Amino acid sequence: MSEFRQNRATKEWVIVAPGRGKRPTDFAKEFIKREPLPPHKENCPFCPGFEGQTPPAVYQIPQTGQWQLRVVPNRFAALSPDKPVIRNFTGTFLSANGYGIAEVIIESPLHNKTISNMSVDEVTNVLFAYRERQREISGNRNINLVTIFRNHGPKAGTSLEHPHSQLIATPIVPPHIRYPIEQAVLHYDKYGSCVYCDYVSEELSQQERIIIDSPRFVAFCPYAARSPFETRIYPKRHTASFVSASESEIADLACILREIILRIRIYLGDPDYNYIIRSSPIGDEDTRYLHWYMIIIPKISTPAGFEIGSGIYINTVAPEESAKCLREVKISD
Amino acid sequence: MSEFRQNRATKEWVIVAPGRGKRPTDFAKEFIKREPLPPHKENCPFCPGFEGQTPPAVYQIPQTGQWQLRVVPNRFAALSPDKPVIRNFTGTFLSANGYGIAEVIIESPLHNKTISNMSVDEVTNVLFAYRERQREISGNRNINLVTIFRNHGPKAGTSLEHPHSQLIATPIVPPHIRYPIEQAVLHYDKYGSCVYCDYVSEELSQQERIIIDSPRFVAFCPYAARSPFETRIYPKRHTASFVSASESEIADLACILREIILRIRIYLGDPDYNYIIRSSPIGDEDTRYLHWYMIIIPKISTPAGFEIGSGIYINTVAPEESAKCLREVKISD
Repeated sequence: MSEFRQNRATKEWVIVAPGRGKRPTDFAKEFIKREPLPPHKENCPFCPGFEGQTPPAVYQIPQTGQWQLRVVPNRFAALSPDKPVIRNFTGTFLSANGYGIAEVIIESPLHNKTISNMSVDEVTNVLFAYRERQREISGNRNINLVTIFRNHGPKAGTSLEHPHSQLIATPIVPPHIRYPIEQAVLHYDKYGSCVYCDYVSEELSQQERIIIDSPRFVAFCPYAARSPFETRIYPKRHTASFVSASESEIADLACILREIILRIRIYLGDPDYNYIIRSSPIGDEDTRYLHWYMIIIPKISTPAGFEIGSGIYINTVAPEESAKCLREVKISD
Repeated sequence: MSEFRQNRATKEWVIVAPGRGKRPTDFAKEFIKREPLPPHKENCPFCPGFEGQTPPAVYQIPQTGQWQLRVVPNRFAALSPDKPVIRNFTGTFLSANGYGIAEVIIESPLHNKTISNMSVDEVTNVLFAYRERQREISGNRNINLVTIFRNHGPKAGTSLEHPHSQLIATPIVPPHIRYPIEQAVLHYDKYGSCVYCDYVSEELSQQERIIIDSPRFVAFCPYAARSPFETRIYPKRHTASFVSASESEIADLACILREIILRIRIYLGDPDYNYIIRSSPIGDEDTRYLHWYMIIIPKISTPAGFEIGSGIYINTVAPEESAKCLREVKISD
């Protein structure tokens, strides 16, 4: 029996249609384990010794000596902060020059590290670097939106093996971001509360999709997940932007993120995935109706014509089932 | 030099960043030609002789005798029309049972046909079948949206080789469809014209992205194309729904669609692709502010964390360049 489900925050619909596709356990068999990577690779632009292949670091941990993490401008950036933002019309078509900031967070000097085999301290450093870069870039009056994301594997859009994440900061806030904000405002005006706070407490009260419930965060496969094993992590404290995450929140999030990625890795056999941190636009960090969160998407299904055409995703694994599978994974540490 | 470009109709933004990725000619080399398919394959559920593996046809050309095209309910449908549509709340989460109609258009008895090697008459039959099915289903008071699409190849979401398209009809009209409608209404109220009519005439006046300009249709790589070689076909006559396409429009569209797919096939070496026909919701067929169209998306780039997170797509081939490449393809017939 399939059903339509509506995302309470964005009003988007999905079709949850289990039984139609594979059983969740089928996904677990599908992935061929990757070849183990070497700890160091000649000519990898992100390995120590090849720092000259990237622009100089804009941020580094530790600040001096052998780096454990470095942030560099993306040498192949789609955007650049060289010229001021100018909007322009060609006939009736609107454009703006490609102003923006694109950075790469090189997460470790070791070529074979990844979130799931890092220590909690190492993941904490990664998240800390995200926050510091987002904070600094938020001071740029031309930037209105910061998107932080990690692409793991070719199906997630990267062929670079060395562990890294990215940050792209744009002057543009697109409809994809604005529409959910409009819905959040409507909700706030109607109920007097943040729709994400309400949505998280509903997930907590229904329980069955929760994977980890910690004092500061909750991780779950959302009621209206668009694809199998899609997982979200929300801070319990109402905060609109990741820039406001406290030290203790970052340390907690590091534990939870690492554990979720590890559970996905163990259950699904190291699938490609994307994760994204979504924050309010810059200047709206204190707003009462928005809430930052992380979304983790294992790339195990392919959006086809129906998804592209209608925006309705067909999810062949009920999120209750996805959550149960990930919850029951045995992890040794 | 990259730039942001806004889709005049939907207000979505893309980043056009050529030079960053490959040259358009690089795409042309990338695809390994598929193994030629046999004209008939044992146990293909869509090949003649195996009709028993699908539900009975709901539509067929010709009506009697050996079929040239048949439409059958999708045996693995994510939706079914068995029970009435009922919306339901689980706590504060909204759902509706999986009511809907899912059909497969089996486009030819020959296993090795596809749009680009069919005759124009055969493609005309395919489009004619789409329209007839959409017309019939539009009479169902529970259905509000019909999406017609074709998935070609595994990256486009199908593993079935036999030439086929799909139709999915839903009671739900999701935000993905509603938001562009809101924008079209705002445009209509401001300018007194259909935003798509205006957008097509702007493309025609700028010329450089046009691939085919025929009396009834225009095919172009749109100004704010989200991915390389994305192509759209718009009817010049203002009509909100494909159900209103006339016999002569269908015959013309068949020529143009076939030629576009053939040009893509020749230039890119038979890439996977999706195409979609987008119509107004049912009941809005006569509206003055909407316009049906076809969108054709070769699957040659992978949306990554930035695209998923921000909704801003990075297109590494300028649509002017994509259009030029497709326009210059030499076709022999």
